[in-house]
Amino acid sequence: MSYAAFTKKVARINDLLCTANLLVWDARVMMPPGGVEARGHQLATVTDYARLLAVSSGMQRTIDSALEDLRGAAEDDPRLRAVRAASDGIAVLSRIPGSLLAEAAELKTRGQAVWAKARAANDFDAFAPLLTRTVEIQRQIAEAIGHDGHPYDALVAGYEPGMSWARLQGLYGEIKAGLLPLIDQALGKPRPRTDFLDRSYPVDGQKRFASAIAARMGYDFSRGRLDDTVHPFEISFTRGDVRITGRFRENWLPGGLFAVWHEAGHGMYEQGIDPAFTRSAFTTDFINLYAVGGASFGMHESQSRLWENRVGRSRRFWELHFGALRDVFPEQLGDVSPEEFWRSVNVARPSLIRVEADELTYDLHIILRSEIEAALICGEVAVKDVRALWAEKVEAYLGLKVESDMLGVLQDVHWSSGMIGSFPTYTLGNVMAAQLFETAATKPGIAEGLDTGDYAPLRSWLGDNVHRFGRSRTPEAILIAATGRGLDVAPYLRHLAEKAAAMGDS
Amino acid sequence: MSYAAFTKKVARINDLLCTANLLVWDARVMMPPGGVEARGHQLATVTDYARLLAVSSGMQRTIDSALEDLRGAAEDDPRLRAVRAASDGIAVLSRIPGSLLAEAAELKTRGQAVWAKARAANDFDAFAPLLTRTVEIQRQIAEAIGHDGHPYDALVAGYEPGMSWARLQGLYGEIKAGLLPLIDQALGKPRPRTDFLDRSYPVDGQKRFASAIAARMGYDFSRGRLDDTVHPFEISFTRGDVRITGRFRENWLPGGLFAVWHEAGHGMYEQGIDPAFTRSAFTTDFINLYAVGGASFGMHESQSRLWENRVGRSRRFWELHFGALRDVFPEQLGDVSPEEFWRSVNVARPSLIRVEADELTYDLHIILRSEIEAALICGEVAVKDVRALWAEKVEAYLGLKVESDMLGVLQDVHWSSGMIGSFPTYTLGNVMAAQLFETAATKPGIAEGLDTGDYAPLRSWLGDNVHRFGRSRTPEAILIAATGRGLDVAPYLRHLAEKAAAMGDS
Repeated sequence: MSYAAFTKKVARINDLLCTANLLVWDARVMMPPGGVEARGHQLATVTDYARLLAVSSGMQRTIDSALEDLRGAAEDDPRLRAVRAASDGIAVLSRIPGSLLAEAAELKTRGQAVWAKARAANDFDAFAPLLTRTVEIQRQIAEAIGHDGHPYDALVAGYEPGMSWARLQGLYGEIKAGLLPLIDQALGKPRPRTDFLDRSYPVDGQKRFASAIAARMGYDFSRGRLDDTVHPFEISFTRGDVRITGRFRENWLPGGLFAVWHEAGHGMYEQGIDPAFTRSAFTTDFINLYAVGGASFGMHESQSRLWENRVGRSRRFWELHFGALRDVFPEQLGDVSPEEFWRSVNVARPSLIRVEADELTYDLHIILRSEIEAALICGEVAVKDVRALWAEKVEAYLGLKVESDMLGVLQDVHWSSGMIGSFPTYTLGNVMAAQLFETAATKPGIAEGLDTGDYAPLRSWLGDNVHRFGRSRTPEAILIAATGRGLDVAPYLRHLAEKAAAMGDS
Repeated sequence: MSYAAFTKKVARINDLLCTANLLVWDARVMMPPGGVEARGHQLATVTDYARLLAVSSGMQRTIDSALEDLRGAAEDDPRLRAVRAASDGIAVLSRIPGSLLAEAAELKTRGQAVWAKARAANDFDAFAPLLTRTVEIQRQIAEAIGHDGHPYDALVAGYEPGMSWARLQGLYGEIKAGLLPLIDQALGKPRPRTDFLDRSYPVDGQKRFASAIAARMGYDFSRGRLDDTVHPFEISFTRGDVRITGRFRENWLPGGLFAVWHEAGHGMYEQGIDPAFTRSAFTTDFINLYAVGGASFGMHESQSRLWENRVGRSRRFWELHFGALRDVFPEQLGDVSPEEFWRSVNVARPSLIRVEADELTYDLHIILRSEIEAALICGEVAVKDVRALWAEKVEAYLGLKVESDMLGVLQDVHWSSGMIGSFPTYTLGNVMAAQLFETAATKPGIAEGLDTGDYAPLRSWLGDNVHRFGRSRTPEAILIAATGRGLDVAPYLRHLAEKAAAMGDS
């Protein structure tokens, strides 16, 4: 009885958070300009009710009495785990004063506009006061949540349960040690041709091809849709309605294609969650007040990276599908071979902009951001020194000079929306993707499927070993069950070395 | 202070109801099939929170203390009027047990599917049990709300404040007396040519022309958008985001065009509401738990009818704009004159389907539905006798035999969604539209504008005399202030007689 009361309350919180997701999707994809102001109020109100319900004394009583009823239940009883998942998340949320969250929300709304303006004006100083306040607020949130040493831990764990700055530093050390020689090696190689990538590719054709491949990968369009936006994203309103967006540019072919497969990877994760977890604690992120089905931000990113990079950027993929792409664009691609196309979308070159970085240099962008964030949060570095620190790290890791704030410290939206501590999950996603993919490739039918363009076996293995669990297991537990060990950088470094070697072998 | 607390609470209720509107819009326009079930939960949860907030003891205390603070305020103090508007609406809502509303909501969800299936099978008996339960529930709601004699009054007043069955009967009597001779007269006339209306008109061109005219009428696309749906509608998420939908069929030109102008008329009403009323009691319908800015359903319909029929179906309109339509469809309309086009969209002929009815016969469809609803609610007629009663009235009013349930008693969606008492507002809309239009035409610049295709003066007069007030005045008060008198059928009958005469004059 009290467990039923618990599930009912959680279902209603989940309804509100799914609704908040729709308010966000619509604002980014459909809303006319006149709707901006009211939409901010609507989103704040809906999210705040979800929060008030979660941290209410009524919810606490419901949790306590459900735990009481479940006394004696087995440790792995899904009901017990659901109540504990909600209870743990709500405990963290409850420690953050509502006034702090309100200021964070207000800063986020204001921040986007301030950042966009500062970026357009190429003027970090115009953004610095807002960033200063954001760092202060996030530090207070970290202290309110509590941590064992480094305040960055509290923020990172909100996006990636079980992760800490110390663990990240170890991981980053291994990655840097592996990557830097590979990058040096790549720089010595002749650059493959890319002259055909910016020819004129009408958007309709790009979209048709990208969608057909996404469907072939396993993204279910009857439980989703693909729309255009400025910044591609995936968002869900339960597993039955998981939407993705893309951005297609007529004169840049790979951008649109890979973004769709990236978002489709996120989408398949949400679509693959156990139907029994609909409207439950296992599809509700109580800390971030967000309706989402993935175990963590990093595990989510592993699924998008896996389909984008491990499948979509593989040599075999283009041997199989380049013909279909050339059928769509016969004139533009008439003088290009599958091998040339594959090479063109795998060029490894250090660059200034994270979102345009290749597989080999991407993580260095993440590492430098994480290092700066951690230093900001614990007060080792002041906002006024961030621009110089950024330039220093870009030179050290990528061998490049930062030419402007726009191409440097102002390039990402994250800090302007209060997200400090989420960058590491991009690299964690890469690492997990490699670890899962390496294991998957040893399972019956998967390598054959990849070789013939039948992605159902891979999708199905990911469904059974990752997707279906939703948030009912930690990312670490999922990795251990699926691959036999916890987070391990080795498969990722092996993959990058193999890719570099294959690219060199022309 | 307590007035500020009041406005804050109302704003949050309005946020939730605007959000519910987005859930509805998205479900009808964008949502993939997989989203249906979860969307039902989301809509129920969001609406239920709005209701719980409205009927909470906290809200009552806030209202009481705001009224206390405002003691001594002038009777027309907008703050006092706002508190009273909320208080009156909430008082009605509070009288309806939550369990009744929950059953009504559940019936509504189930009803749509049952009705659609019964209609497709042409089988009223399959729908009758659900209609029986709907009538029972609505009767209980009417009794809970309370009334002075006829339970239908309580339901009608929810859609049209101040309206009663007795007043409607008087009005209907006048309308019938005026219409029936006009219809007889129209039937004696030769039928104008309509052979060109079902030629092939590519939808893009229809949409372009309809949108350009809607913008010219005054619908602001920067605070709205036009999408495709099965059933055209207008819905708003505050005055800054007021969306309309249309349905275009390649082989039926007038359907798509007039639907857009109809919905644009609704849209201009919402877009024209005083910005000060945003998120206030004057844009919240507490009885129907609906975020809407119009004074009543009837007043809203007056605005759609006015632009659709008084402007869009006028002879001068097509003298002015037929050229532009022919530019879009030069081959299809090459053998058609503006006069012929005008006649083709004004053919007056009794028909079985309400939504396809012409101006002259439309209200008879409404009157027969109202009479049946009123009889059902007070128990004078049983559901099992409705089919026969329908046939009898169609024969009496329209001189037609009802050929099937699909073309008869099962044609409208209203009863399946629990809406009993809303039909009269369509006719009230026609009457108010005529009354407002007749007055407007005497004001400086308006007749000249209609004559030259400059609709700004008309739109502006409607803005000043109707739109801006939102729900802050009753429909009756708006009519009196704008036209010098309360609801008056005479202008409507005059218009229909003139139209009939003009159509006869060929």
